[in-house]
Amino acid sequence: MLKELKEAVLEANKALPKYGLVTYTWGNVSGYDKDTGLVVIKPSGVEYDDMTIDDLVVVNLEGDIVEGSLKPSSDTPTHLVLYKHFPGIGGVVHTHSPWATSWAQAGKDIPPLGTTHADYFNGPIPCTRPMKKSEILTNYELETGNVIVETFKAKDPNEIPSVLVHSHAPFNWGKDPHEAVHNAVVLEEVAKMALNAFLLNPDLSEMDSILLEKHFYRKHGVNAYYGQ
Amino acid sequence: MLKELKEAVLEANKALPKYGLVTYTWGNVSGYDKDTGLVVIKPSGVEYDDMTIDDLVVVNLEGDIVEGSLKPSSDTPTHLVLYKHFPGIGGVVHTHSPWATSWAQAGKDIPPLGTTHADYFNGPIPCTRPMKKSEILTNYELETGNVIVETFKAKDPNEIPSVLVHSHAPFNWGKDPHEAVHNAVVLEEVAKMALNAFLLNPDLSEMDSILLEKHFYRKHGVNAYYGQ
Amino acid sequence: MLKELKEAVLEANKALPKYGLVTYTWGNVSGYDKDTGLVVIKPSGVEYDDMTIDDLVVVNLEGDIVEGSLKPSSDTPTHLVLYKHFPGIGGVVHTHSPWATSWAQAGKDIPPLGTTHADYFNGPIPCTRPMKKSEILTNYELETGNVIVETFKAKDPNEIPSVLVHSHAPFNWGKDPHEAVHNAVVLEEVAKMALNAFLLNPDLSEMDSILLEKHFYRKHGVNAYYGQ
Amino acid sequence: MLKELKEAVLEANKALPKYGLVTYTWGNVSGYDKDTGLVVIKPSGVEYDDMTIDDLVVVNLEGDIVEGSLKPSSDTPTHLVLYKHFPGIGGVVHTHSPWATSWAQAGKDIPPLGTTHADYFNGPIPCTRPMKKSEILTNYELETGNVIVETFKAKDPNEIPSVLVHSHAPFNWGKDPHEAVHNAVVLEEVAKMALNAFLLNPDLSEMDSILLEKHFYRKHGVNAYYGQ
Repeated sequence: MLKELKEAVLEANKALPKYGLVTYTWGNVSGYDKDTGLVVIKPSGVEYDDMTIDDLVVVNLEGDIVEGSLKPSSDTPTHLVLYKHFPGIGGVVHTHSPWATSWAQAGKDIPPLGTTHADYFNGPIPCTRPMKKSEILTNYELETGNVIVETFKAKDPNEIPSVLVHSHAPFNWGKDPHEAVHNAVVLEEVAKMALNAFLLNPDLSEMDSILLEKHFYRKHGVNAYYGQ
Repeated sequence: MLKELKEAVLEANKALPKYGLVTYTWGNVSGYDKDTGLVVIKPSGVEYDDMTIDDLVVVNLEGDIVEGSLKPSSDTPTHLVLYKHFPGIGGVVHTHSPWATSWAQAGKDIPPLGTTHADYFNGPIPCTRPMKKSEILTNYELETGNVIVETFKAKDPNEIPSVLVHSHAPFNWGKDPHEAVHNAVVLEEVAKMALNAFLLNPDLSEMDSILLEKHFYRKHGVNAYYGQ
Repeated sequence: MLKELKEAVLEANKALPKYGLVTYTWGNVSGYDKDTGLVVIKPSGVEYDDMTIDDLVVVNLEGDIVEGSLKPSSDTPTHLVLYKHFPGIGGVVHTHSPWATSWAQAGKDIPPLGTTHADYFNGPIPCTRPMKKSEILTNYELETGNVIVETFKAKDPNEIPSVLVHSHAPFNWGKDPHEAVHNAVVLEEVAKMALNAFLLNPDLSEMDSILLEKHFYRKHGVNAYYGQ
Repeated sequence: MLKELKEAVLEANKALPKYGLVTYTWGNVSGYDKDTGLVVIKPSGVEYDDMTIDDLVVVNLEGDIVEGSLKPSSDTPTHLVLYKHFPGIGGVVHTHSPWATSWAQAGKDIPPLGTTHADYFNGPIPCTRPMKKSEILTNYELETGNVIVETFKAKDPNEIPSVLVHSHAPFNWGKDPHEAVHNAVVLEEVAKMALNAFLLNPDLSEMDSILLEKHFYRKHGVNAYYGQ
């Protein structure tokens, strides 16, 4: 079942080491099929190189295993919360990519500083609040998803497809697994350049909001014309 | 038509990922034929690996498509302004290479700090002023070219073949597409070392101007003798 | 003798350049066989690419050569002290990996700042005190081991499998040579991200201790459930 | 003539890009034959990949070409000064390797901060004074050599085989071209880690001098025993 989605999820998982986003197995990609309401996700602890299409696990939005003999990624509950609350997304990626994770560890939003950021993110890439003791101790991975959703209460996840989980690392999403990985690659590049720009000018403020919107909307939405 | 120039432009575009200057398709190279007044440029949104000579687009200096079935790079108007105003240049490169882009995001000129800089740039590599609301909202890519030209009002583009567009990224040029890419590679190396030198000494001032000129002119102009 | 352990030690040594942990021969791995009380260790000054299983040296815990025609690594006495004092460890790795070594040179513990750290280290990764004149001048490599053991007087080496030797570089360990190298790779990634996080926020304090323990114990010990 | 030395010089030049020490042709290696008093050096402006043994140039210590049809590296006069004044050296390497060049641009000595430094350099790696106007304008490359020699008036070049030329880049040497390149690789690694250590602790002072000497002399001189 879901052969096409499985192929997309497999390819997206294998892209993580190729783009330098993961050390060992520190990352996972899932994909969502809106017709069946099912999610295909990376199994727990399997090396990317060794992974085959039969290793992937199919779960429903409640987390019940529908197909697959391996354990789904421990981060599965976080992915499921995002699919439930962010309408229109079809892929989720979690990594500990080093530049973005450094911002998460610093507990800081990545402010928009240039058009690379603006081409993909229509505003700051937010860092969640720290999680509470009760959230950490009970249903931790589910609560990780909830704190992300809380962070997007007044934000459109389709216009800002990444988040930094405080003291942890980024989650990214997109219309499908391929786009979610694409956004994870961009986030890493944006995080690196933002850190370097701050080293050059610690008092740097956000870029001009008109320039930000110009770049975002020339690439996204009904009036997009940009492909570089 | 322009077969030789097309080959040069194709090779120069494919050099961008090879030198680590681009993520995805975030960069484009064009070449200018002074006899016909035509420009060969990268098509919009095509991957470097897949690009063939027939994908390239030929436009005139007014931006009319003369040959080619694909859309030219969205940045074409910026390239055309540079060819019109910077006499003698035959190639233009735009990238979001990370070190140079970090300086552009910080809104700072790269000051000459050492002979690597001086071998290629006879003075600071300037960052443009921020663009105005009207420039962003109307003919944005054309106005990006105009703000670069304004920045070079009192500078010789043949002695400083790169610019940082404020809150955006670098543009580079040269006598042909190959040299423009060469300068883009050098800019990235210079930007990296200048940032690191400032981390070691935040109060660093510009290098001795006599040493700067010595290095620039032993490599450029009629008395050049340098090839290392 | 010890054929299986030798193969593991050989593979672990060859993994050091593969993971970017060493320049030239600046690193060594050993393995410990608890049944015989013998240690298999890298020979001194041999390139990783050229190393064969017959180059490995077998020593007892007193440092006497039991098998092998080459000189054991000069750091052998340090390894032996760790096997004697840290019960349960079966592999030791020493490298001058650049990010971890930068912390060692700064003389600072790496504080836990995020879950990447917490997944492997249940607390700060300590830096030893500077060594005394007498320790440097007499039995230096043995005393290097002793100062590590002193640093762990109130710490569990099985919960913090790395140390930074002051003004020197890291040592790492694990249940076998493979796990020791794994921990060395993680340390390097953690050291890099911690430095970058401090650049973003110089006043950063340690992560929440409940989050730290949650991550450490979901991956280690009897209640572990994590494989990502 | 000098076939063996030519092979060593060719191999050493080709090692520069392999170790990431050069961009384009920004580096050169020479070797000295003490019996004939002749120097074999890289030709000017030739790519490392294309270079063959017949491209190498043989000069005497006065800089006269003894063999070879290409122009010797523009930096030849600097190399010759070093061979004349530093007895015992048999190879010289000049690069613009980025980390060491960042220190040269900052105009700062690299202080000994850890044993990686101490294993190769028995003290700070000095940065020359800025060159004077007259030195830049007349016989610049020769005067570059002279300012290096001046910097070593009270230092032993065999114990500190690298120097940073102010606002320029490093020169390195060794008993032969291979060792000179080895030292250039080490310098780059040391420069990187020293910069990172200063970012962690801007008030860092030099390492303990007893530890410095212990590491230097366990690897060099008559009582050396170290091979790692």
